[in-house]
Amino acid sequence: MNLSSDPDRSGQPECSSRHGGRHKATSGVHFTVSVVLPAGGTGERTGLVTPKQFYMFLNRPLISYTIQAFERLSWIQHIVVVVAEESIALTRDIVQRFQHTKVRVVSGGATRHRSIFNGVQALDPGESAATPDVVIIHDAVRPFVEEDFLLEIAMAAKENGASGAIRPLVSTVIATTSEGYLDHSLERGKYRASEMPQGFLYGVIHQAYQKCSEFDFDFGTECLHLALQHTGTRAKLIEGPPTLWKVTYKRDLAAAESIIKETLCRSACVTSDGSKRARELGRCLQKVMASLDMELDVLPEPIGDASRLSKEWNFIKLFVNGSGLSEVEETVKALEAANRALLHPVVVVWVRLDTSDGMSVSETGAGHLPLMELASAAKLQNILLYGIHFLLSEEDAGFSEGSVKRLAELTYTLIHDRNALLAGQMLCA
Amino acid sequence: MNLSSDPDRSGQPECSSRHGGRHKATSGVHFTVSVVLPAGGTGERTGLVTPKQFYMFLNRPLISYTIQAFERLSWIQHIVVVVAEESIALTRDIVQRFQHTKVRVVSGGATRHRSIFNGVQALDPGESAATPDVVIIHDAVRPFVEEDFLLEIAMAAKENGASGAIRPLVSTVIATTSEGYLDHSLERGKYRASEMPQGFLYGVIHQAYQKCSEFDFDFGTECLHLALQHTGTRAKLIEGPPTLWKVTYKRDLAAAESIIKETLCRSACVTSDGSKRARELGRCLQKVMASLDMELDVLPEPIGDASRLSKEWNFIKLFVNGSGLSEVEETVKALEAANRALLHPVVVVWVRLDTSDGMSVSETGAGHLPLMELASAAKLQNILLYGIHFLLSEEDAGFSEGSVKRLAELTYTLIHDRNALLAGQMLCA
Repeated sequence: MNLSSDPDRSGQPECSSRHGGRHKATSGVHFTVSVVLPAGGTGERTGLVTPKQFYMFLNRPLISYTIQAFERLSWIQHIVVVVAEESIALTRDIVQRFQHTKVRVVSGGATRHRSIFNGVQALDPGESAATPDVVIIHDAVRPFVEEDFLLEIAMAAKENGASGAIRPLVSTVIATTSEGYLDHSLERGKYRASEMPQGFLYGVIHQAYQKCSEFDFDFGTECLHLALQHTGTRAKLIEGPPTLWKVTYKRDLAAAESIIKETLCRSACVTSDGSKRARELGRCLQKVMASLDMELDVLPEPIGDASRLSKEWNFIKLFVNGSGLSEVEETVKALEAANRALLHPVVVVWVRLDTSDGMSVSETGAGHLPLMELASAAKLQNILLYGIHFLLSEEDAGFSEGSVKRLAELTYTLIHDRNALLAGQMLCA
Repeated sequence: MNLSSDPDRSGQPECSSRHGGRHKATSGVHFTVSVVLPAGGTGERTGLVTPKQFYMFLNRPLISYTIQAFERLSWIQHIVVVVAEESIALTRDIVQRFQHTKVRVVSGGATRHRSIFNGVQALDPGESAATPDVVIIHDAVRPFVEEDFLLEIAMAAKENGASGAIRPLVSTVIATTSEGYLDHSLERGKYRASEMPQGFLYGVIHQAYQKCSEFDFDFGTECLHLALQHTGTRAKLIEGPPTLWKVTYKRDLAAAESIIKETLCRSACVTSDGSKRARELGRCLQKVMASLDMELDVLPEPIGDASRLSKEWNFIKLFVNGSGLSEVEETVKALEAANRALLHPVVVVWVRLDTSDGMSVSETGAGHLPLMELASAAKLQNILLYGIHFLLSEEDAGFSEGSVKRLAELTYTLIHDRNALLAGQMLCA
């Protein structure tokens, strides 16, 4: 169960080659698990035209992040995404474009329950194969679910027939009179908010839906309730982390984006031109960046980052008194060849250290146009290239704390923000 | 009641000179209203060291935004901020630094109810003066409350004795068994989340607290419930907008910041050097920026923005084939003199349009060092200055759509992001 559960370190869906086998149990899950992701929302509450599951975060729709959160787990077999009829083509495009391999897209019903039931039925492959032991139901707009918690939900569903995530209530819940006055307030400690994911034995969720009424299908909101009512299965409730929250309002889009950005900027790979001075700068930078919570892996060689291509989202390339743009270009080409930026934009920061004292300011512009051109081409491959001209006076030969801090902060903000509109800019530190 | 309710357009707290008078009723509120803001939270749920009410957004702590949301309203008399003993000095510093004039800082109790009661008691000035008719209780960590809604709450409290904001439930609420299994789920339509603000006649909230038990003080969470229980006052419930939400988790900090930034980037004032070409660029820019939802006010004169200093948060200054940095400096000095950036950072974007065909790239660096110096000084006054070198070839004399779009997007991202780390940079469009 110690597979990497960090979606943002795995360049490709981790499990694309493994998901076919039943009971291969690389993870210790000795039963089969598949997923139903209802994604039929219209996004009314965000106040946006695009339904929130299709809203773009760093060039990728939210739903692809959620799919990825499941797809990377070897013990998840299939993911059925249930969307409105009119979104099927769009969803299939997304699945293809981001190379999702475990996904089947099916059409939803008029209500949430009808959609989920369609998804559950789609997991029944007919006589020639078996249905999964456990079905996890999750929302397409809750992208940050982690492996540990999914395992807990799956295990509890296997054992109890049903399981679900809960969270403490943030607000007091009150009952209102029909005239809009306070009737009574609930004792907060006795109640919980029911969240997603939920897990069910296939038979339990299938039977619950087969037995439930048209009224349940149209107005019911809680799958756990249907399982209790129609199959007598009492769900095990498990408290989940706050990151399980549902992207509901426009502000949640900013919150989700900030979480994705935070995850991508925790580390970077630094290469230098091999000179003593560049290596020294690398070490100084490493110290300051650590205080900004970014871990730098400083390599001695100019193109020593080849082996890091499959792991890192961020590259910093240091050059002293020379261009180095051709080495930057090599890195960009290697990233492109590895299809590295398929899931997240990769950042490359080209730092030109200039110690020629009294160098005319006009020199700072050199290299800008070629950088702009290279960055424009790289951007098409989701690689964001920025330049920093790090200008030091002779007196500052020892890298003063202030100057390295300026460089570090500028580098940090470029890597953290991943602002595509600034790609190709040559900044000054 | 048509006072501007947009916190982000009022440079200074709007009401600093008006708040003394009772019943002045510039707004049609014919009774007195004061506010209690409990701000004693420890921020455990955000996962941050700083309690969330003191977390900085664009150089200003969250609590100052919330204070400002009330202070700008002429019909609000006093604001009592209740903080933990150890935060009193910090809070007083904030009040002084951001020139809040209606605020009194008092020490809180061990629980939320004890703190609110302290705040309510602090509104009783003794025999020589009168207590307010209505008390509004709000959270320090809900900064986006608008005048219209506050008026509704105040009016309903005056009429009914108590009133409170509600929101629909986002998740189903469920009751759990003592072993952690589902007991039953509540019918979502019958319940609401109780939010803030709440309003009370002074007598009602004062009496409720005087009569309530030690248990209520220690474990009660709902003021409306205490009013019902101890004074028989049935609160009127009013559905509020989603922006009333409480900054609770770390992700909410990003959400709050994005809302503040969105509010600040809706418009900008453009001045040109008076040349035909610059005026033409201003008009082109205006069209493209409108598609990005930013309204540009294009003035014909180079320093015609003096009258806009008190209204705008963003300034764009266009210069053709010349520096213009001294005019930019004048604008910065005028903003400083007006103390314009007290509440929000002001952005100044200096655009140098260059049409000298075949100009050497080395030229693009000119003006960078003086810009950097000016920007460093301006940043200390919360003014963020950026430069854009807009390089056009002769063939592009007519401002092609693509080139203006590039300039517009770059300008937009600088204004929207308000990234202080990028101040002083000279970008290329």
